[in-house]
Amino acid sequence: MLHLSFKVSTAIHPSAKSRVLVLGAGNFGSCLADHLGDSDHDVYIWSRDETVVQYFNLHHRNPGYLKDHLFSSNIQAVGPDIPDRNLIQEMDVLLFAIPTQGLRDTLSALRPKIDSHKLPLLIFVNKGIETGTQALTLEIIADTCGGEVARSATFISGPSFAKEIVRRQPTSVSVASLCEAQAKKASELFHQPWFRCYTGGDPIGLELAGALKNVYAIAAGMSDGLGFENNTRASLITRGLSEMTRIGTAYGASPLTFLGLAGVGDLFLTCSSSSSRNYTVGYRLGKGESLETIIKTLGSVAEGVTTAKGLKKIIDELGVDAPIANGIYQVLYEGKRVQEGVQELMSRPPSRELDLPETTGGPAQRLLGKLRSSK
Amino acid sequence: MLHLSFKVSTAIHPSAKSRVLVLGAGNFGSCLADHLGDSDHDVYIWSRDETVVQYFNLHHRNPGYLKDHLFSSNIQAVGPDIPDRNLIQEMDVLLFAIPTQGLRDTLSALRPKIDSHKLPLLIFVNKGIETGTQALTLEIIADTCGGEVARSATFISGPSFAKEIVRRQPTSVSVASLCEAQAKKASELFHQPWFRCYTGGDPIGLELAGALKNVYAIAAGMSDGLGFENNTRASLITRGLSEMTRIGTAYGASPLTFLGLAGVGDLFLTCSSSSSRNYTVGYRLGKGESLETIIKTLGSVAEGVTTAKGLKKIIDELGVDAPIANGIYQVLYEGKRVQEGVQELMSRPPSRELDLPETTGGPAQRLLGKLRSSK
Repeated sequence: MLHLSFKVSTAIHPSAKSRVLVLGAGNFGSCLADHLGDSDHDVYIWSRDETVVQYFNLHHRNPGYLKDHLFSSNIQAVGPDIPDRNLIQEMDVLLFAIPTQGLRDTLSALRPKIDSHKLPLLIFVNKGIETGTQALTLEIIADTCGGEVARSATFISGPSFAKEIVRRQPTSVSVASLCEAQAKKASELFHQPWFRCYTGGDPIGLELAGALKNVYAIAAGMSDGLGFENNTRASLITRGLSEMTRIGTAYGASPLTFLGLAGVGDLFLTCSSSSSRNYTVGYRLGKGESLETIIKTLGSVAEGVTTAKGLKKIIDELGVDAPIANGIYQVLYEGKRVQEGVQELMSRPPSRELDLPETTGGPAQRLLGKLRSSK
Repeated sequence: MLHLSFKVSTAIHPSAKSRVLVLGAGNFGSCLADHLGDSDHDVYIWSRDETVVQYFNLHHRNPGYLKDHLFSSNIQAVGPDIPDRNLIQEMDVLLFAIPTQGLRDTLSALRPKIDSHKLPLLIFVNKGIETGTQALTLEIIADTCGGEVARSATFISGPSFAKEIVRRQPTSVSVASLCEAQAKKASELFHQPWFRCYTGGDPIGLELAGALKNVYAIAAGMSDGLGFENNTRASLITRGLSEMTRIGTAYGASPLTFLGLAGVGDLFLTCSSSSSRNYTVGYRLGKGESLETIIKTLGSVAEGVTTAKGLKKIIDELGVDAPIANGIYQVLYEGKRVQEGVQELMSRPPSRELDLPETTGGPAQRLLGKLRSSK
């Protein structure tokens, strides 16, 4: 198999070694730490869990995730306390791989330890909308660290199962920032023949795509669970993409971002693999299980279930047509039967295929204004 | 399973029954004839093969395609001679489901039998580029029937396996025409709760998407055949979509067409199903078989193999960056090893994600000029 030839080929050595602190030792944080270690950077990974820190430094394995994988020897685990000022100020890069719901607290705690005059490269890989506020990560950064820090923050998203990344399976991702020079820096940090980075300047679109795709993965799972076949799934995914793009455009993102790796690429991956938690939630709903039972037995969080709630508020505020997301919301939170939801979707009158609103959406304009006005 | 409820629910009766002649009794022509019969229109289907005509009229089955399916009783097969002037002039709709390479001859033979003052609705479902001329179907129509006929022609494309359509599995397609009123007519003819039509005004983009996706399905198959996993396939499909969009935009199509059912929808279906012939060609190449052996044993044509050749000329003429299509061309026609092609793709330098050329491409401008100037 070809990936063997990547396995034995050597990594591109970075022109300058970077010191990277990965915040969060979950599935995705761990695999990115491993990739950066494999790329010859000096890597620290922070876990809140003391046993994880000790186990990792002793065995170079994560006891909770990617358990079969022996991590690069140049990765050191730190914690359980939040890293101190000395470590933070030595870092060239801070990579945030913690859930969106915990990000505001972590950033607030870290901010005083970061030297404003020597700001490290900030990379965010979390996906989702903050519950309650419906804030994107860009806004959470602006609220906690100021607009200038948010403007230079970078975001990575794309079709990337962690277990494939640690085996050097060829992977490609989108890297976006309002400051494209920073996106280029993040791309250079990560880029290897088996890990390709494509840069862009629309972090709002990238964030929305990453969060929303989980809702449409639930829909794809439902369709399969109900017994529908290939035509139906392909059309549901496509109409989901069209809906995501419509919502994103009304929000103020670029429609083309949804054509990229963080959009269609990740949607495609998430909707066509039974290893996706969101797909699985939909599939089991389609088979007739209740959401309560599914959540109890799933063993981990399916972000799409939470995102569907925040998304509903965004859709209502924007006044945009989003029958699939609305249908998923009704099934999850208003007790609508799955069959009934699908019947309604199919009974809608014929329409034009792509009617995009203007790309000057209010929320993005307001957010960008906030970034400009806050220090 | 939910599709049972579509099975027993009745079709929307058309406001006016149409008389439809389907030209071509292959897999796709047969399933569309069946759908229109099921929707209560009066349907004729033309086959060049006398035994097919007789067998169909006796048993309401097609001896070559969808063999398990009992067709609607209101479909009558005609042939093997090309339908005569009387039948043609009674028709409200002519639906062309014959291969692109045979279309020029069929249209030339039919043109004198069509009453110009009472032009039927013309629908085309073939996909591909004419070998030698690199003409799209729109241009073949203009050459044989004049620009006015081409301007009112309609095109249908989207993720639609024939065997699922005849079982009323929910399916959605794009319907495009330079004259959107005609697209709306075609949509009304086909629309049912289990067969949704979305209209648009970019037949050039729809045609290019339908033809090009077969080349990228070969690439997706190769990746799987080589043993790569989900991340790689998702990124290859996404970069393929980005490349298709770049080529289409340089050609003069709308980039958004590639976000629709005829673009990403059909690409998704074709790249993720082992029942796709183009995917299978790629898969077997990835496993190390020669193209010659594969073609000999495949049993039917894989359009992507031919399209890759015409596409190469289009790419060179446009001067557009298309590393995947070029790589496929080299593997198919210049003896490049599959592994080598993939290594080259992965070793390209990092880049921006979406760099689209202006949407005022020369070929589309020339084609539209031709449609305006010819009667």
